[in-house]
This record gives sequence, C-alpha cells and structure tokens, in this order.
Amino acid sequence: MHEFDRLTSVTPSGEGRYAAELAPGWVVGGGVNGGYLLAVVGQAVRAALPAKPDPVAVSAHFLSASTPGPAVVDVDVRREGGSVATAAVDVVQEGVTRLTALATCGDLGRFAQRAPEARTRAREPALPPPEECPGSADAAPELKAFIPMLDRFDLRIDPSHTVWGAPPRMTGAIAGWFRWPDGREPDPLSLLAVCDVLPPVTFDLGMPGWAPTLELTVHVRARPEPGWLKVRHETRNVSGGMFEEDCEIWDSAGRLVAQSRQLALVPRPA
Amino acid sequence: MHEFDRLTSVTPSGEGRYAAELAPGWVVGGGVNGGYLLAVVGQAVRAALPAKPDPVAVSAHFLSASTPGPAVVDVDVRREGGSVATAAVDVVQEGVTRLTALATCGDLGRFAQRAPEARTRAREPALPPPEECPGSADAAPELKAFIPMLDRFDLRIDPSHTVWGAPPRMTGAIAGWFRWPDGREPDPLSLLAVCDVLPPVTFDLGMPGWAPTLELTVHVRARPEPGWLKVRHETRNVSGGMFEEDCEIWDSAGRLVAQSRQLALVPRPA
Repeated sequence: MHEFDRLTSVTPSGEGRYAAELAPGWVVGGGVNGGYLLAVVGQAVRAALPAKPDPVAVSAHFLSASTPGPAVVDVDVRREGGSVATAAVDVVQEGVTRLTALATCGDLGRFAQRAPEARTRAREPALPPPEECPGSADAAPELKAFIPMLDRFDLRIDPSHTVWGAPPRMTGAIAGWFRWPDGREPDPLSLLAVCDVLPPVTFDLGMPGWAPTLELTVHVRARPEPGWLKVRHETRNVSGGMFEEDCEIWDSAGRLVAQSRQLALVPRPA
Repeated sequence: MHEFDRLTSVTPSGEGRYAAELAPGWVVGGGVNGGYLLAVVGQAVRAALPAKPDPVAVSAHFLSASTPGPAVVDVDVRREGGSVATAAVDVVQEGVTRLTALATCGDLGRFAQRAPEARTRAREPALPPPEECPGSADAAPELKAFIPMLDRFDLRIDPSHTVWGAPPRMTGAIAGWFRWPDGREPDPLSLLAVCDVLPPVTFDLGMPGWAPTLELTVHVRARPEPGWLKVRHETRNVSGGMFEEDCEIWDSAGRLVAQSRQLALVPRPA
C-alpha cells in the first residue's frame, strides 16, 4: 500500500461512522492540510458508497483547525440511486467539528459517455521541465520543519513564480509539477489532496503568513493518466479581506482533470 | 416590500425550521431556479444567524427538482461565534430533499477592515449600454411561457453572445446587465440569485436543452453599490459529460462583488 493511501485510510465503525488517524506528516504550520482532509473525507465516502467510485464535486467549509491524531468521519448519505449520490460528511476530533462537507460522487467513465466530445478552451500551463523547477526536496530545512507535508510528495515549482521562500514575483499565480514519490499514480481521490499542495498564491503577492480557508470546492472532471501532473493556482480578486484561489490540475495526457476554488481570508500584516 | 424579498421570504416555525413558499414565478422549464432557491436558503440563514448578516460562501448540492409550492427549510447551525458562522441547510418538499447546502456567513464590512487594499486582476466586462442589449422583456412569448422567471427581473444580454433563442456565437460565454424591475437595489443576499439568472453558457455553444446542476458555490465578496449589475458567465472546460460555469457579478462602482461556479451535466443531444 502506498503512503498516501495508508495515511488517508479509514476504518468503519458502524452506522456511517469511520475512524481516521490524521497524519503528523500532513501538518502545515499550525494545522493539518485541508486537501489531505478532503482525501480522508473521500476515503470515507468511497467506503460508504462503493457503487459511486469517483468523487465528482466536494465542498468543504472549515470550522476549526485540525490536529494530528484520531478523528471520526461521519458520513450521512443524502441521496443514492441514479447516476450520482450525495453525502454530508463531518470530520470531528474530541467532539469538535473540524470541517463539514458535501460530496457528490459518481462514475466518471459513465458521465463521459453522456457526451464524449470535449470543448476545452482552458490552456494547459507551459512549465519548464521538472528538472529545471526547484523541488520540495530542496526546500530549506527550517521550512520543512514548519511544513512537514513537503516530505509527502515531489513538487517542482516553476521559477516564474515565488519559490520556497524566495521574493514574490507578483504574478498572482504559483504552478508546478506534482507526483507521489513512491510511484503511486494519480487517481480521482488523490486529486482532492493535490489541489491544495501548493503554497498560497498570496506568497507570490508579497503577503506571507497563514491564510485561513473558509471554503474549498473541488470538481474532479476525469480520471487522470499516469505520470506527472501539472498544478496551477491563481487568484484574480484579492479584496474585501479575502481572496479566491483557483486551481487547475492537468494530467500527462494534457487533459484538465480537476478544477477547484477556495475562498480564504488574506493573511494579517506581520 | 419588493417582490424579490416577498417571494423568497421564510416564516420561522421553531427549532431552526422555516416555512417557505416556492414561487411559480421563479420556474425555469421543469423546475424552480437554483439561484432563487439559494436566496431562500439565504433568507433562512439570515433569520437563524442575525449577527452574521451577509452570506459569504454558500455551497449547494442539488438532489431533486424543486416544484412551486410549500417547502421546509431546515437550518442546522454548525459553528457560531468568531467572525464567521456556518450552517447546514436543507430545502425539503413533501419529505423529499431538494437541495442540501452549507452556508458560511459573516459581516463583509468587518472582513474588509482586515485588509482594505484590493488587488484585483480580474477585468470588468465591457458591455454595450443596456439600451443596446436585447432585454428579457423582449423575449418571445413562447420562451417566457417556458421560463416564467424572465418576468422577475430586467436582464439585457450583450448581443456578442447568443440572445434569447438566437443562433450560438460559440464564445462559451454569456453576459449582460441586471437589475430588479421594481427599484430594489442589489445586496449580498440577492446576489445569490443573480448568479444564476443567465441562460446556460452551453446555449452559446450550440448545446440547447436542460443542463442539470450538480453543485453551485457562490462567494459574495462585497456589498454591491446601487444601480445596474454586470453579470458574466463563462465555461472553459466542456468535457467528460460535464461543464463548469463560472459567474462574475460586477457592481456599478466597477467592483467584482460576487464569484460563483457551478458544475452541471451537459445537455443530452436532442
């Protein structure tokens, strides 16, 4: 079993309840990474709804910061039957809800049969080759100590944007290559985590610091092909004390396999 | 009381439950408009959480088609205290859940104090003046009979895109001017409806027909100024039998006041 699957695994404890162990290895700053939490949610939903294997639309509202250690994942199936199913999911630690989510699942292969033609106007990001992009493995030790999750994946960031603590480039974007280091190939479930592995785009705008996420929705659009993924985050509207962060994930076949958007509070000035 | 407020109003019936009457005037084709339903949700949440007046992030997953008539809106407050509150909300008709939603609310004015500076890269849509854009009032009677909600607002569509049954322009976008016809000014709550008043962008791609929405998330970013709103929908990725529809709403002061994204199934070929 690959590390990612092991660290997101859940154990059924009856009546739609699952036990999880939130991994210290997925900590970022003071909490556990939100995309990782979505993958844990995805594991529980897949266990509860085995006939609907793919997460299609997952919306999470974050209520309090998660900590490494035991968690309970409660899955309340709200619709079953037909081509999609929807569940309400809570992640709870010591009686405190960390996030509440809605997950709509289905069979992406079956959806694609509905209309196989693709009309994508989105353009695949142009990135330098992975070997020319500074990797998470090269990040400074003090950065890794603060962000243990950097050791969970192989992320190579396009130096057109700010990289691993370098000065901001003021592009409002961050992009890079992503793969699991142990040879695990991407699948729809893992895309729930991949959409949240890059540093906040505010780093590239000269606004370092913690940006608390209020809401994160992921749309998984296709099953990714094996190989490197391209991941790109962008914000277009930093205003009113908030910013949106749009993420696109492209697979090795050049397909846009996931889109996500999160709404976060801007970091407070240092 | 303006028509929009009357038709979205809710009556408390105790223990977080509210009675609503879904308006026949907000029907589109076989169901009740999704944005209108979000506004009904917004009314119930505002009644349940009066100290958090503004909807900030609302995510709805649509489970079955709503019909005009009585509905129950169940509001389960999941977090209160601090700068935001979050509620889980169900809209139910005759025991059948129509939509399940998560709503995070707060005070947009207080958020803006967090960091008053705006860094918006998004560009306000350029539209011909409203008097040069064909209005919903001019739509053919047979179209209005099928889409009664067209009589609820004054919508003027930019003729650069498909307009009221005209041939597609293949731009993947639809944009126009919006206002309430009875002088009601825009506010955060009404933006929840405005983000879903345009025809599906698939109409502009030569794919007419019903596009069932799986999920719709709205982020309200600022309180809009009085006057006309500009509303623009765009899709970049029609693939895998689905498409995303991104909406931007700009106020008369030239500010991006709301962003939304929905994931919908592509219409089946006729």
